[in-house]
Amino acid sequence: MPCELCDQVGGVLVARTPLLRVIRAEDAHYPAFYRVIWNAHVAEWTDLPPAHRSHIMQAVAKVETVLRGALRPTKINLASLGNVVPHLHWHVIARFEWDAHFPQPIWGSMQRSVEPPAIERLGVPLAELDAAVAHAVQALDQPAAS
Amino acid sequence: MPCELCDQVGGVLVARTPLLRVIRAEDAHYPAFYRVIWNAHVAEWTDLPPAHRSHIMQAVAKVETVLRGALRPTKINLASLGNVVPHLHWHVIARFEWDAHFPQPIWGSMQRSVEPPAIERLGVPLAELDAAVAHAVQALDQPAAS
Repeated sequence: MPCELCDQVGGVLVARTPLLRVIRAEDAHYPAFYRVIWNAHVAEWTDLPPAHRSHIMQAVAKVETVLRGALRPTKINLASLGNVVPHLHWHVIARFEWDAHFPQPIWGSMQRSVEPPAIERLGVPLAELDAAVAHAVQALDQPAAS
Repeated sequence: MPCELCDQVGGVLVARTPLLRVIRAEDAHYPAFYRVIWNAHVAEWTDLPPAHRSHIMQAVAKVETVLRGALRPTKINLASLGNVVPHLHWHVIARFEWDAHFPQPIWGSMQRSVEPPAIERLGVPLAELDAAVAHAVQALDQPAAS
């Protein structure tokens, strides 16, 4: 079975380490929407050995921490779903009271149209946010052993 | 601000430890839907110190592992959202190709009605599933220090 996260980077590449990568999803409603993608093909988080489970969650925490510090979002949303693309990836999404679906999940029904657009409301240029995410993820400790 | 996860258990109590509890959501579409709830009121996962972040994820892994072993689901879905109830809780949901929203997230648009109902299709009585989840969560190592 071809897998799009094996074949493609899956978004704007922000950081890559030996085990994982972080991409920014290009979602007009959610400009501050990143994904932490395990490089190897595994479907479920618990397919990883415990040291690697912890490692990917440390990467998720790094991204969450950058988004909280830079954007002061109303809430962070984290999710590992993979029903359509069963290759382990964690969604890390900065949510705001004014965003298109709040307080619904981004997969729920739209609550409002957003004007001026979300990208203008963030207050931080995406290049700057990407650089901060990359810096944080590159500082991850690599796991001692698999 | 009153918080319903401070005031109430939040579902069918399955397991409780000094730091967290596991409840089963009572969702007719998703009978194998559990939540790992941090007992103390914090909003974001990264509000916890790293040892506690790891601890709650170990509990999530325990629940995921039980659901995978008992039910052989098509996919596990994990999420920490909290837009409506900003008290840290992780959703752990067994998903099946035949379920009401698959492959959409459970918060997306319904794809089909399910007959016979999901509870009958699981193949495992909920009391047995709850007991297996409780056993696994009670075996969690408690963190050495906060």
